[in-house]
Amino acid sequence: MSERIRLGLVGIGKIARDQHLPALEGDDRFELVATASRNASVDGVAAHKDIESLIAGGHDLNAVSLCTPPEGRYDQARIAIEAGLNVMLEKPPAATLTEIADLAERARAHGVTLFTTWHSREAAGVEPAKAWLEGKKITAARITWREDIRRWHPGQEWILAAGGFGVFDPGINALSIVTKILPDALLLDQAWMEVPEGRASPLRAKLHMRSGGAVVTADFDFLQTGPQTWDIEVDTDAGTLRLGMGGSILQLPGETEQKAPDREYARLYARFADLVAARESDVDVRPLQLVADAFLVGERTIGETFAF
Amino acid sequence: MSERIRLGLVGIGKIARDQHLPALEGDDRFELVATASRNASVDGVAAHKDIESLIAGGHDLNAVSLCTPPEGRYDQARIAIEAGLNVMLEKPPAATLTEIADLAERARAHGVTLFTTWHSREAAGVEPAKAWLEGKKITAARITWREDIRRWHPGQEWILAAGGFGVFDPGINALSIVTKILPDALLLDQAWMEVPEGRASPLRAKLHMRSGGAVVTADFDFLQTGPQTWDIEVDTDAGTLRLGMGGSILQLPGETEQKAPDREYARLYARFADLVAARESDVDVRPLQLVADAFLVGERTIGETFAF
Repeated sequence: MSERIRLGLVGIGKIARDQHLPALEGDDRFELVATASRNASVDGVAAHKDIESLIAGGHDLNAVSLCTPPEGRYDQARIAIEAGLNVMLEKPPAATLTEIADLAERARAHGVTLFTTWHSREAAGVEPAKAWLEGKKITAARITWREDIRRWHPGQEWILAAGGFGVFDPGINALSIVTKILPDALLLDQAWMEVPEGRASPLRAKLHMRSGGAVVTADFDFLQTGPQTWDIEVDTDAGTLRLGMGGSILQLPGETEQKAPDREYARLYARFADLVAARESDVDVRPLQLVADAFLVGERTIGETFAF
Repeated sequence: MSERIRLGLVGIGKIARDQHLPALEGDDRFELVATASRNASVDGVAAHKDIESLIAGGHDLNAVSLCTPPEGRYDQARIAIEAGLNVMLEKPPAATLTEIADLAERARAHGVTLFTTWHSREAAGVEPAKAWLEGKKITAARITWREDIRRWHPGQEWILAAGGFGVFDPGINALSIVTKILPDALLLDQAWMEVPEGRASPLRAKLHMRSGGAVVTADFDFLQTGPQTWDIEVDTDAGTLRLGMGGSILQLPGETEQKAPDREYARLYARFADLVAARESDVDVRPLQLVADAFLVGERTIGETFAF
């Protein structure tokens, strides 16, 4: 495809303004021709209230990118796929695994691209970390993902409601990185969660996993005040690799820290353009599948009540 | 393949004796050449303690059938696949979705058959129910699966432990039938579970699902004394179809009940032989995926303590 991809952006909230709009502006393979959002719009871009009217709007669209909340995303994605549009999905791609599986099948049937994005995988250190680990013997890995819910999700009651995933909302970013950089399948053995009294989703979780011969642990905490931690350490026969700051800082044994500017969303859109040009899909459910596995087999304890 | 399939049976417990052994005896495409079981054996059949020794036993095996508990099944299946054997799995096929996805990939890579069985799908009424529903407009469906845990699972504490699935252990049979007979994808919207105080898995659950334009509900109860109920009703523009007794009785509108003898496991092994001959796999994760979705997005309440 030599012409630009005429794209509709659905869900004009914080993530759209902070990440999607700048990424689209910086990529001349895309032309943002219209938006859909109940309450918001983008200056100079045709605005619709919902995806039905966006698609019916005569914009000659090639694709939509959905950054609405995951609960309604299945219906929107299905409408777009059935209208013959290529679809890019924010993380997590849908509310349930069955929804994603069904969307993947529909995209295949309609011959359109479906791209389930995991933005943390595009952090600067992730690709070189994966490359460095190739061929090394991995003996253990530790994920430490501890952040302050009140600072990053102020007042977002939905995140602790049923289907909100609780501390797995940030934790799934770590799982998206680890499933990318580890060469062997990452399998869950056990999980423990602490759910505050009166809420449905956990504020804390620990996972015990394995990958090849390595034990992989995860420590997710939503009540971390002071310094925040988004670290992954991987022990190998050549020393310990450390990914810090959500994947953006890479420290290899005996080397100085590598740090590069954040280009996560620029890379996601570049990949989407490549997929559309190749008429391929990229549907990787592994991060959400691990979260579902943890809810399926995990043990729960009830913790103290929590208020924002 | 004109020669018989030389099969090893792993896990000699109640389900092996009640179902697998009679089915194997009645199918001359199979020859049961050895078993693996920690404590049990079958008269006249070579006995091993575990799958490693079964495979190393010089039996010239073509396949194994695993009816051990789901927690250890991944490792056994992986060993068998990597030894080039075709593999049949009891339900649920593994402890987590990630395990099944990984086994499916390994079976592909090794060119062997993997068959995730769902025995209730082979109940006598299921195939004719599916055929009758084809082309009809389905407006609603109701699953009622109410049985007495003390009668069917006496003393089985594991079923209420983490990973035991609780009332979803029988309920997954209903989900395996419904995902087979409904023409559209079955998607979960909401779930409610009641977990007894001090236990990890639910004794009761209700699911709210949709398939095409139809609302599909499920009522799972593990505390049903007196008459037991394993019913599925599907409302259509041509009247209501009713599957009773776990799929073995079919009642079509205006007709008398259809009932046929139980041939579930005979049909499973016949299908396995066909898959092996065709060098194909049948890995359908949808029933377990719906259970995981329910745990992922469901609301929980704590109920009264339960003792067997």
